[in-house]
Amino acid sequence: MTRLIRMLGKTYEGQRDCGLARALEVVGERWSLLIVRDALFGVERFGDFVTRLQIPRAVLTERLRTLVGLGVLERLPDPGHHGRWLYRPTPAGRELWPAMHALTTWGAKHSGTENARIHRHATCGSELLAGGGCPRCGVVALEDVETERTGPRPADEDPVTAALRGPRRMLEPLVLTGN
Amino acid sequence: MTRLIRMLGKTYEGQRDCGLARALEVVGERWSLLIVRDALFGVERFGDFVTRLQIPRAVLTERLRTLVGLGVLERLPDPGHHGRWLYRPTPAGRELWPAMHALTTWGAKHSGTENARIHRHATCGSELLAGGGCPRCGVVALEDVETERTGPRPADEDPVTAALRGPRRMLEPLVLTGN
Repeated sequence: MTRLIRMLGKTYEGQRDCGLARALEVVGERWSLLIVRDALFGVERFGDFVTRLQIPRAVLTERLRTLVGLGVLERLPDPGHHGRWLYRPTPAGRELWPAMHALTTWGAKHSGTENARIHRHATCGSELLAGGGCPRCGVVALEDVETERTGPRPADEDPVTAALRGPRRMLEPLVLTGN
Repeated sequence: MTRLIRMLGKTYEGQRDCGLARALEVVGERWSLLIVRDALFGVERFGDFVTRLQIPRAVLTERLRTLVGLGVLERLPDPGHHGRWLYRPTPAGRELWPAMHALTTWGAKHSGTENARIHRHATCGSELLAGGGCPRCGVVALEDVETERTGPRPADEDPVTAALRGPRRMLEPLVLTGN
């Protein structure tokens, strides 16, 4: 990964001691972290990322290529559509979950939004701590996290966002009818 | 804070349900998160941020103003230097710690760097989990976190980075001789 980070030409030479600077080289670009978030929610298909994020297709193409190159996502042939691809978080990508959960919790708390996601440990039903752990059971595997969006449903909600409302398991592949 | 976020003109209209998108509006800019990190380490003075981050002064001025406006840092008169300011994390700024710790841990693990920071619960000595909690005691106040940088000391290490090696408490104001 060090080699790949260098390829990005954003090495923050003065910040050699800091894992944070290195993490920002990978996910500091805003779209990248939102793409990884949705991949952790189970979004796999190019078109679903476009629908959900309203991101320009050329930007998405470039960001997906970078995230695959950095070992955060992996690309697999889509068995249902010849010539298309599925994108899934690698183990390194899955390990971004605690950071993402903590940032999300902070943003929801300090923005005064009425919409929020709740994350629970599916096994015991407890709401997760900001750090991603379960207050009753401790460390939780991402597959055992149940996610649910609360709050009013906007009239113009897109089908991907609607399907991600849940409750559903993290990493559960999103399959939309007509995809 | 919502109003202030709007002022930034980066509201990701399509991402209304996501605290992560809102957090990125505040700390998605790379320098901003590195500035907040150093403020949590106890860096308070403009000149110390410049020394540590090697950031252009105009950029630092703009980023500090934004972070103060967003309620992440507060600005206080420097009692030791008439006309200068100290910058300190607000309660909202302190609450960025778990996210920052998780990102840092991820970056250190996946970059292959030999340098790393260790964070311990000062009361019991346990190394913190990636989510920022103590494996023995649970939730830890930031004031009770001890930080220490490990690994070789580079020949060209600046005095601020050297002083932050620790072990020292998070949020403990950094005072350099000759400041």
